[in-house]
Amino acid sequence: MNDKKEQEIRARKIRFILEADKLKGVVRNTLLTDQSRYENAAEHSWHLALTALIFFDAAAVKNMDLTRILKMLLVHDLVEIDAGDLLCYNEDQRRRQAEKEQKAAERIFNLLPEDQADTLSGLWEEFEARQSPEARFAHAIDRLQPLLQAIHTEGKTWRLHNIRKEQVLERMQPIRDALPGLWGYVTELIDAAADSGYLIQ
Amino acid sequence: MNDKKEQEIRARKIRFILEADKLKGVVRNTLLTDQSRYENAAEHSWHLALTALIFFDAAAVKNMDLTRILKMLLVHDLVEIDAGDLLCYNEDQRRRQAEKEQKAAERIFNLLPEDQADTLSGLWEEFEARQSPEARFAHAIDRLQPLLQAIHTEGKTWRLHNIRKEQVLERMQPIRDALPGLWGYVTELIDAAADSGYLIQ
Repeated sequence: MNDKKEQEIRARKIRFILEADKLKGVVRNTLLTDQSRYENAAEHSWHLALTALIFFDAAAVKNMDLTRILKMLLVHDLVEIDAGDLLCYNEDQRRRQAEKEQKAAERIFNLLPEDQADTLSGLWEEFEARQSPEARFAHAIDRLQPLLQAIHTEGKTWRLHNIRKEQVLERMQPIRDALPGLWGYVTELIDAAADSGYLIQ
Repeated sequence: MNDKKEQEIRARKIRFILEADKLKGVVRNTLLTDQSRYENAAEHSWHLALTALIFFDAAAVKNMDLTRILKMLLVHDLVEIDAGDLLCYNEDQRRRQAEKEQKAAERIFNLLPEDQADTLSGLWEEFEARQSPEARFAHAIDRLQPLLQAIHTEGKTWRLHNIRKEQVLERMQPIRDALPGLWGYVTELIDAAADSGYLIQ
């Protein structure tokens, strides 16, 4: 590879890394456990990757590719730099969001050198498609961590948006599939949350 | 495994995951690229893992275990929940910090079930020891991302703390070892930063 090509590849990588920094400014609807502020999408992505490490041994499917799971979780929210985060319980907005995210993926991943752009957008598409065991596990983790934080913060954001128990149960279905050993526990948590008035029955 | 044992394992995992949330409140000396605020250690850890993916193909050592690198980067700052972040250019404090971090590691990793506590504290120790190629690469990444953000924010935190060019060059040595193809570029960045008055010559 000549120097100029090498420089261009490096410049594209660095451009992407600096662009990724903006994910730290994308605010989600989850409170930190100390309720000091809302979580951003970058620290959320870190927390998911860590949670995936911890619950990987409880996955329904064995012999999954942990590296691909971690990569998916690291990149899954990058599109929110352009598309923003969305309250997951708003169905109308979710349809419009898909289009915005597709455009965002094209812009953001294509900052990278071509081969890496293909790899990372492929990981994002795999996550979104929810077909592979790895993508399904990643989705389960993306449900579990916010659920734990919502319970730990007495359902404040649920109460703020008048969320119903059945909506949360529906939202948590990926856990039922990918982490079946946790499902009983998760439904107990949700029952107790509804009994405490965190969710509308 | 009986139910009670299983419940205990699950409870310990969840206790750890909720404890990890506190890393989002540990503030570092790096500004976000938009200069809106200082970075926290959780989003920093995410950014490092992403940067590791992007520069893995430029590593000096080939055939490293990428999964172990990602795991190390995900857990490397957890000790800061108890020990806090430290300005990396203060040598005196760095010595006292090591002791605090050791205690923090014992407390935090031992929230987990025993086998996971051993694995994660092993990863943290591997990172700290900087002996394995994976740990050395992880350190290089832990230098590169803050450097890029410091340059992009016109060295504001360097200027605030009167940092000298030679201190930054010394601090960046892990890049020289693990990402030698970037070293020329990194020294050019630092030279230019000093010429612009971001660093004391």
